[in-house]
Amino acid sequence: MRPVLTVGSVAFDSVKTPSGEVSRVVGGAATFFSVAASFFAGVRLVAVVGDDFGEMEMKVFGGRDIDLAGLQRVSGETFRWKGEYGNDLNSRETIYTHLNVFEEFRPHIPDTFRTSPIVFLANIHPALQLEVLEQVQEPEFVALDTMNYWIEGAPDELKTVLQRVDVVVINDEEARLLSGESSLVKASRIIRQMGPSRVVIKRGEHGVLMADRDGYFATPGLPIENVVDPTGAGDTFAGGFIGYLASSETFTDDVYRQAVICGSAMASLSVEDFGLSRLLSLADEDIRERFDSFRHLTSFEQL
Amino acid sequence: MRPVLTVGSVAFDSVKTPSGEVSRVVGGAATFFSVAASFFAGVRLVAVVGDDFGEMEMKVFGGRDIDLAGLQRVSGETFRWKGEYGNDLNSRETIYTHLNVFEEFRPHIPDTFRTSPIVFLANIHPALQLEVLEQVQEPEFVALDTMNYWIEGAPDELKTVLQRVDVVVINDEEARLLSGESSLVKASRIIRQMGPSRVVIKRGEHGVLMADRDGYFATPGLPIENVVDPTGAGDTFAGGFIGYLASSETFTDDVYRQAVICGSAMASLSVEDFGLSRLLSLADEDIRERFDSFRHLTSFEQL
Repeated sequence: MRPVLTVGSVAFDSVKTPSGEVSRVVGGAATFFSVAASFFAGVRLVAVVGDDFGEMEMKVFGGRDIDLAGLQRVSGETFRWKGEYGNDLNSRETIYTHLNVFEEFRPHIPDTFRTSPIVFLANIHPALQLEVLEQVQEPEFVALDTMNYWIEGAPDELKTVLQRVDVVVINDEEARLLSGESSLVKASRIIRQMGPSRVVIKRGEHGVLMADRDGYFATPGLPIENVVDPTGAGDTFAGGFIGYLASSETFTDDVYRQAVICGSAMASLSVEDFGLSRLLSLADEDIRERFDSFRHLTSFEQL
Repeated sequence: MRPVLTVGSVAFDSVKTPSGEVSRVVGGAATFFSVAASFFAGVRLVAVVGDDFGEMEMKVFGGRDIDLAGLQRVSGETFRWKGEYGNDLNSRETIYTHLNVFEEFRPHIPDTFRTSPIVFLANIHPALQLEVLEQVQEPEFVALDTMNYWIEGAPDELKTVLQRVDVVVINDEEARLLSGESSLVKASRIIRQMGPSRVVIKRGEHGVLMADRDGYFATPGLPIENVVDPTGAGDTFAGGFIGYLASSETFTDDVYRQAVICGSAMASLSVEDFGLSRLLSLADEDIRERFDSFRHLTSFEQL
């Protein structure tokens, strides 16, 4: 088991969905990622919070294998985001995004983190993602998430960092925008030509498509009776996916496939409650059961 | 192996897609269904064509186990449809629909078809679907397709026929409209409460979701490099699905799962060329290979 270094946002989220609403709960890409990944491997978190991020909030990281040596605490308010989901949960409106202390965030990788073998660059400015890679000594494996904002706003920096990445983990809309292709088959090939040897495309309720040189692996989404809050599902997927890889000796095709299912299992659990609630109450047995649910959902006999 | 009775449209299609265009090629729901199903079981076709449907057109049924005793030939023109697909193939515009001889179609089931054990009611007016069932002696298994036009235009007749159906095979949009629920999980439960014990929801490029009392089976779509023409994919799916069931001794959960994959395999092959072209040139080996492609796409090891 190798530790996973991750860099990204820690935030206060306020979320309204058809199931209800919560305000000022701990969220952020790096938070969802770290908590999810910590079920599989040790995590080294690099992020920034304000002085409003108190001991109570820190509890989301407590009792887990998450090293907080890279969590900067600076004067000011923590990143805040408020969003509201439509009735079918497929549409989301951002009410506000206050970057606050995140606006001036420059990732500083502590010395003890600089030999991290596995790196996950959560969705931040690609120039910052590059700064992280400059500070890490030849990682074995680098994965990256990004978003429309950077694909359109910082395409050159994004392309530079993509050349140093092994796996891209993005959603279908982002894959189409990044590649300029509406077909995900063509999109995944074009993105692989940008550097990454593997592309993992998150399709929300439609599951995940993974592409490498040799072909594809796909899983449908698990039918879930009550999706309460999709916030963080993509980061939670990435946490389960990368965490499982980090816990594995070698990255064979079989391991990658299991990693996609671990990520999907974690995401499918996470959306059953608001924010981090479900993840924070998870037992290893829940994850194993959910993994088996994916097997039951998708398996069939040979002809 | 039990024969499959099907009732639906035989048509002349004109289709334009980003890959090119064809005009006046043989199509229609019952045609795609029959040709696809005939790879697995004997088919008994009930439909109507005009006197413009000549010997050359009849060749699509030739050399296959398709009994044409129920194919009425009447004076006038065959059903014609013209459609144009958008660049990403997910949007389709109907240029015209000329029902022609189909407008007055009343299904007459020949005596030799009246003991058919397996019945597939392709997408026609639900009152006609009911007329078919009135003429068949206690079939073991009835499946039905329908469309938005009948869900909105003939809801009462549709609900009556649904009470006599074992399996509904519809697409995601139709499932949402029929149930009034955007979640396919909830939609499938509501549709099962209307009568059918099983719902099979076709999601296009996102694959298939099957629901029964005991749970779900799902497969993602196969990533296909060049989708040439999606016309008839849903009917082709139904043909592979029902055809495989008809070829099986008992309808166990395992058999239903394989049937979904057979249907998906047939549909994924069909879209690789215009109209019926790919289906007409298929060998059994192609189907087996495509079935195996779905296994390779979706299989993963236990944790």
